[in-house]
Amino acid sequence: MDEAEDRSRLLQRYAAVRRRSLEIAAPLGAEDQAVQSMPDASPTKWHLAHQSWFFETLVLQPLDAAYRVHDERWARLFNSYYEALGPRHPRPQRGLLTRPSLAEVHAYREAVDQALARFVDRAGSDAARRAAPLIELGIQHEQQHQELMLTDILHLMSLNPMRPAVLAGAPPAAPDAPPSNWIRHAGGLVEVGHAGPGFAFDNETPRHTVLLQPHALASRLVSNAEYAQFVDDGGYDRVDLWLSEGWALRQAQGWSAPPYWLADGCEFTLHGVQPRDPARAVRHLSFFEAAAYAQWAGARLPTEFEWEAAVAGVQPPPDAYGEVWQWTRSSYDPYPRFVAAPGAVGEYNGKFMVGQLVLRGSSCATPRGHERVSYRNFFPPAARWQFSGLRLARDL
Amino acid sequence: MDEAEDRSRLLQRYAAVRRRSLEIAAPLGAEDQAVQSMPDASPTKWHLAHQSWFFETLVLQPLDAAYRVHDERWARLFNSYYEALGPRHPRPQRGLLTRPSLAEVHAYREAVDQALARFVDRAGSDAARRAAPLIELGIQHEQQHQELMLTDILHLMSLNPMRPAVLAGAPPAAPDAPPSNWIRHAGGLVEVGHAGPGFAFDNETPRHTVLLQPHALASRLVSNAEYAQFVDDGGYDRVDLWLSEGWALRQAQGWSAPPYWLADGCEFTLHGVQPRDPARAVRHLSFFEAAAYAQWAGARLPTEFEWEAAVAGVQPPPDAYGEVWQWTRSSYDPYPRFVAAPGAVGEYNGKFMVGQLVLRGSSCATPRGHERVSYRNFFPPAARWQFSGLRLARDL
Amino acid sequence: MDEAEDRSRLLQRYAAVRRRSLEIAAPLGAEDQAVQSMPDASPTKWHLAHQSWFFETLVLQPLDAAYRVHDERWARLFNSYYEALGPRHPRPQRGLLTRPSLAEVHAYREAVDQALARFVDRAGSDAARRAAPLIELGIQHEQQHQELMLTDILHLMSLNPMRPAVLAGAPPAAPDAPPSNWIRHAGGLVEVGHAGPGFAFDNETPRHTVLLQPHALASRLVSNAEYAQFVDDGGYDRVDLWLSEGWALRQAQGWSAPPYWLADGCEFTLHGVQPRDPARAVRHLSFFEAAAYAQWAGARLPTEFEWEAAVAGVQPPPDAYGEVWQWTRSSYDPYPRFVAAPGAVGEYNGKFMVGQLVLRGSSCATPRGHERVSYRNFFPPAARWQFSGLRLARDL
Amino acid sequence: MDEAEDRSRLLQRYAAVRRRSLEIAAPLGAEDQAVQSMPDASPTKWHLAHQSWFFETLVLQPLDAAYRVHDERWARLFNSYYEALGPRHPRPQRGLLTRPSLAEVHAYREAVDQALARFVDRAGSDAARRAAPLIELGIQHEQQHQELMLTDILHLMSLNPMRPAVLAGAPPAAPDAPPSNWIRHAGGLVEVGHAGPGFAFDNETPRHTVLLQPHALASRLVSNAEYAQFVDDGGYDRVDLWLSEGWALRQAQGWSAPPYWLADGCEFTLHGVQPRDPARAVRHLSFFEAAAYAQWAGARLPTEFEWEAAVAGVQPPPDAYGEVWQWTRSSYDPYPRFVAAPGAVGEYNGKFMVGQLVLRGSSCATPRGHERVSYRNFFPPAARWQFSGLRLARDL
Repeated sequence: MDEAEDRSRLLQRYAAVRRRSLEIAAPLGAEDQAVQSMPDASPTKWHLAHQSWFFETLVLQPLDAAYRVHDERWARLFNSYYEALGPRHPRPQRGLLTRPSLAEVHAYREAVDQALARFVDRAGSDAARRAAPLIELGIQHEQQHQELMLTDILHLMSLNPMRPAVLAGAPPAAPDAPPSNWIRHAGGLVEVGHAGPGFAFDNETPRHTVLLQPHALASRLVSNAEYAQFVDDGGYDRVDLWLSEGWALRQAQGWSAPPYWLADGCEFTLHGVQPRDPARAVRHLSFFEAAAYAQWAGARLPTEFEWEAAVAGVQPPPDAYGEVWQWTRSSYDPYPRFVAAPGAVGEYNGKFMVGQLVLRGSSCATPRGHERVSYRNFFPPAARWQFSGLRLARDL
Repeated sequence: MDEAEDRSRLLQRYAAVRRRSLEIAAPLGAEDQAVQSMPDASPTKWHLAHQSWFFETLVLQPLDAAYRVHDERWARLFNSYYEALGPRHPRPQRGLLTRPSLAEVHAYREAVDQALARFVDRAGSDAARRAAPLIELGIQHEQQHQELMLTDILHLMSLNPMRPAVLAGAPPAAPDAPPSNWIRHAGGLVEVGHAGPGFAFDNETPRHTVLLQPHALASRLVSNAEYAQFVDDGGYDRVDLWLSEGWALRQAQGWSAPPYWLADGCEFTLHGVQPRDPARAVRHLSFFEAAAYAQWAGARLPTEFEWEAAVAGVQPPPDAYGEVWQWTRSSYDPYPRFVAAPGAVGEYNGKFMVGQLVLRGSSCATPRGHERVSYRNFFPPAARWQFSGLRLARDL
Repeated sequence: MDEAEDRSRLLQRYAAVRRRSLEIAAPLGAEDQAVQSMPDASPTKWHLAHQSWFFETLVLQPLDAAYRVHDERWARLFNSYYEALGPRHPRPQRGLLTRPSLAEVHAYREAVDQALARFVDRAGSDAARRAAPLIELGIQHEQQHQELMLTDILHLMSLNPMRPAVLAGAPPAAPDAPPSNWIRHAGGLVEVGHAGPGFAFDNETPRHTVLLQPHALASRLVSNAEYAQFVDDGGYDRVDLWLSEGWALRQAQGWSAPPYWLADGCEFTLHGVQPRDPARAVRHLSFFEAAAYAQWAGARLPTEFEWEAAVAGVQPPPDAYGEVWQWTRSSYDPYPRFVAAPGAVGEYNGKFMVGQLVLRGSSCATPRGHERVSYRNFFPPAARWQFSGLRLARDL
Repeated sequence: MDEAEDRSRLLQRYAAVRRRSLEIAAPLGAEDQAVQSMPDASPTKWHLAHQSWFFETLVLQPLDAAYRVHDERWARLFNSYYEALGPRHPRPQRGLLTRPSLAEVHAYREAVDQALARFVDRAGSDAARRAAPLIELGIQHEQQHQELMLTDILHLMSLNPMRPAVLAGAPPAAPDAPPSNWIRHAGGLVEVGHAGPGFAFDNETPRHTVLLQPHALASRLVSNAEYAQFVDDGGYDRVDLWLSEGWALRQAQGWSAPPYWLADGCEFTLHGVQPRDPARAVRHLSFFEAAAYAQWAGARLPTEFEWEAAVAGVQPPPDAYGEVWQWTRSSYDPYPRFVAAPGAVGEYNGKFMVGQLVLRGSSCATPRGHERVSYRNFFPPAARWQFSGLRLARDL
């Protein structure tokens, strides 16, 4: 494949992913896209601008001498957390940015898209070679924010007493949940982490060897029906099932079921209030709830490497991706010999490696093709607004 | 004047005031109108809906048998604080209501306007007679919220690092501040409170006699230039000038000037960043700042009755209205024999009569014709986002 | 009476009041005296030291050239709120001061007592004349803190699940509550404020004329039995009875009765858990509860001047003093022509004149002889840990 | 060794450890022992009572039929966090418990000591066999609280502006710090965890195999002198050195050096203000500070297993114990096949296994003989009031 074809493919992929962000936002009004429901979430409009800021700041500004910054005042507004790139508008105040308007953000996206297309077309070989991994990083970054756009807007709508539907119609039906089997693993040394040559985030590297204990993994995720048994059995009232910090949260915030569960077997979704499908994977669990369920079920959560070994194995479980992110019992620690890159790119993952847990797989909100066997998603144990559930494991 | 003419005048007045609310919102985008900048402020869209809810709930529902509620789910959303009218969406979460959309709120306003016009046209004499004071209350209520729309949007924009201008062009210039004289009053018994027959809020009644001490009132408000002298003289650093609670706030929040003052003699306004006019009345002061200034100036704040006596007097001071609300040294206590009306209307004022201070006059944001010599505005002493300043007084 | 006799009397009075502080603390262990139960309360040991600091700082240091400060580091620890006297240990951290020990504070008291006695004995006429009002102020100040010692220790003990008794035995029985009559007043101009020549705080001055409306005052305080009817009638659940801020507090903190009321007709007291005497005045009410009760009873709270006129009248109500402080409907505003003294003494009262309500009378915890018809006690409307109740009033 | 001798030895060991707790408290007054300086710390008196409660509740009550509970009301007061043992007094309010007094707690200790001695003397073989591991657990538990007594009292005294010394005299001098070498390890499979047969906490088990990477460990801890270079080099101002959450804390709380460092090369200690010994291990670091230092030094923190392998090795580093606890880069996760015991004992460690980091070694405040190569201490990453420092590691 020659270089021109490479460039063309990259641009096609870029354009497709960029288009997808706008498709996700399309059912939302300007007001829906402006408001921030909690400090952890961001307005849709902010996501749309931040995605563009990423390409502008990490690709166009350093590599395209001809590029003129769209609006210099915006760097401060749409920088998420990159200390190396200057001061930032406080995260909890993203929802105050009624200006720039959504129309101005759309124009920003178009300007960046045109500049990036022109740059990729015209850049010399050397600049193009240096740009390609950064553009790929920007694409992956945009996909991550596509998932956040969905989880954040769901959270916002859940706080509206009218429970509005963002998406028309009913969600696609899930097939019946098959019986759950145990996928056994004899333990021993296995290789984990990104094996190349495609894209991976730095936190998936270096590939290295780990030692697994003999264990078994459930062949599918815990379903709504199963989780309802835990709820009905008083799982939220049995302190012996809970980690100490989780129990304190459950008490302080009055948890008694997953956050979007409603009475009468319904739940709140992007399609508004819907009957809760018993066969579908339970979702919007915190790590604490996932761990308590596993305790109740006489099992445990898998480690991230048990998960990776199973999914990389000969017969990977059929529901590894596309349902819900799966909490693991692994703290989000750096891999051996992990070193963050210098500069802003190095802030992408490394500086968050404490106090969080690894989730594996992908969810119904993850863009197709974004998933990967070595992918390490991570969230604090109390996070509930993501599409997060669990798969059981046990010792052999 | 016959009854038909009465009805026609009422409707004309209603229509004009309703139209004015939309004019105020006109320069704002849908996003600007959706966001809430702090718990004390409300989104423009919420104001627009709440004004309509007031007419719907206090006039149409109880008096117009033909009226059908626009959307029953909205009562909860747009009830501000009337306990008698059922549960309410939490005040600090008004900014989460991206739905109903601004377009839906506009349709709501139109539906209420049509229903009210039809009702006033067709109501029997008795219903019309009962409706008239409630409609007038609704009009006055709508005007109060027109002022809040302006103060709230100014606050929101002030938190945007880009300092956007809501209104185009420059603000109208103020004439030079004339020298300030002392208007002397010999004290003695005076009548205060609403004297009828026009509209007044219940907190201005009953009219009653109070005893004034001999005193003098400044003939005009404290200007930006004068307040700048206080700032330059270290007024924000001299603890002896401040009430204890005010000093604690000044320390905790780092106050060093009025909230919208900027460097280089500028200030943030609805017209964006503008040169600070030295002659114009200083504004956006808390009670604590007003009281500290008066202490620094060797004077004091007037009582609300000293103000009322002066403005009701033979030669009222020329700047009683239309500049800034004037903090008084009077706590917002009930007048002798004040009794709140039964039901929801009684919650309008009475239940707030503790912990607040009275402001008199009116501001540049007050709708023309809304001011009144007996008018009692009130805010907590820490409030700074209103158009609030001061006039000096002293003992004789 | 000659000057020597004046000095001797002053010292006797000083010694008696100082002794009384130690008597109040006597039933408490060193641990009881060290701990602070909330930011509004102070440890007994801190009170004991602060009382001495007051004499040391306002009398001995400025007037007695021979006096050597007991420990220079303590000025910072035991200054309560006098900005003119330098930096202060943060109020919420008074309970962290395990050092100096109680024994060291006792030694401090003795050192100050000896120095003050020697100073009063030996001072020249001029110094003695200047010292006398400051020593009297210190005595009155010490008495105010004696009441706080009792309210603060009661609050601390109430948080101990074992509900310990500070005082042995049962409290003295109260006589039956007589029927309540209405003491009528025709209104008109009356003189209020301190009439001299004895001691008064500056906030009771200047004496001035006020205009009263015709009204009636209840001849006695609201009793436990009467307040229990309010509770039983759902008074804590009827939002229409409450001021808005009071209702918010009641909701947030789950108020359903006075704070020290227990089940089964008991209450927590300095004598531990005791049967609640139906005839005794209800106590530990916030202003919000007092106002709600009055609303429920079809009455209102008196103004501070109605109270003063009645108690200064020909037939003062028999229970004006010694039961509970009586909330009035008067905000704690300065009297006309009130000016705080310059320097530290001026901080005693004036800087707190906003956001508080006046209470009149005195309580069972007030030292005998400390009460006065013009006395203005004041607390924020939410305060419940004082011995505070109410008397009804109504318009005529 | 026969059973009688076993019993006698156990009792001797019990008595010695119990005595040591009182020795630690001996320099403190009753007030010092009553106050709680922050929610994470407990009053000395509470520690003394809780240690006794542990023996009473986990040994005497279940196993000694003759035992009568000392005071039934105290179970609630002195249960720390055992949900299985009933409701608990809220942790942040331990400092409000002025009753029971210190004298009563001393009597409680004596009563428990006598009962336990009698029980061990007289128990049947079966009961004695069941009691022995619980008594040992209680002894270890008491030792853990001995260290907390010291760290908690140091924290309390550090908040007293007079900076009082708890211990008389100067601290023992430290020898010069030898040059630091790198102890190399080739990596590979190693056994970790408690190897028996002595006592260990459940979190050190099961012993299992882990895979180490080739690495080197510093032969000694980072010293005050070295850490001062980091401070002088602007280590607290270089955001690139810090984990994101650590930087946020550093900003919010204004960290610029270890918490007890003072100006002029001094530090606050149990001996009061002392010159900071350059050769001594730096202490009172949070994990965030330890990690930032390692980053600055071009190294990293060791994993807990690298530490354990080195200390279990042929030539263990000489300063493994007795200086400061050493932060590792290992999250406090359960070991493979770890299962908490049923009942109260199972709450000892397992329920805290999220969001914390492992520290290894022991500190100058750890009782002699309490340390162990497999010991896993753990604290949240922000904790600074422990004797905690670091040792560097690097990859080979």
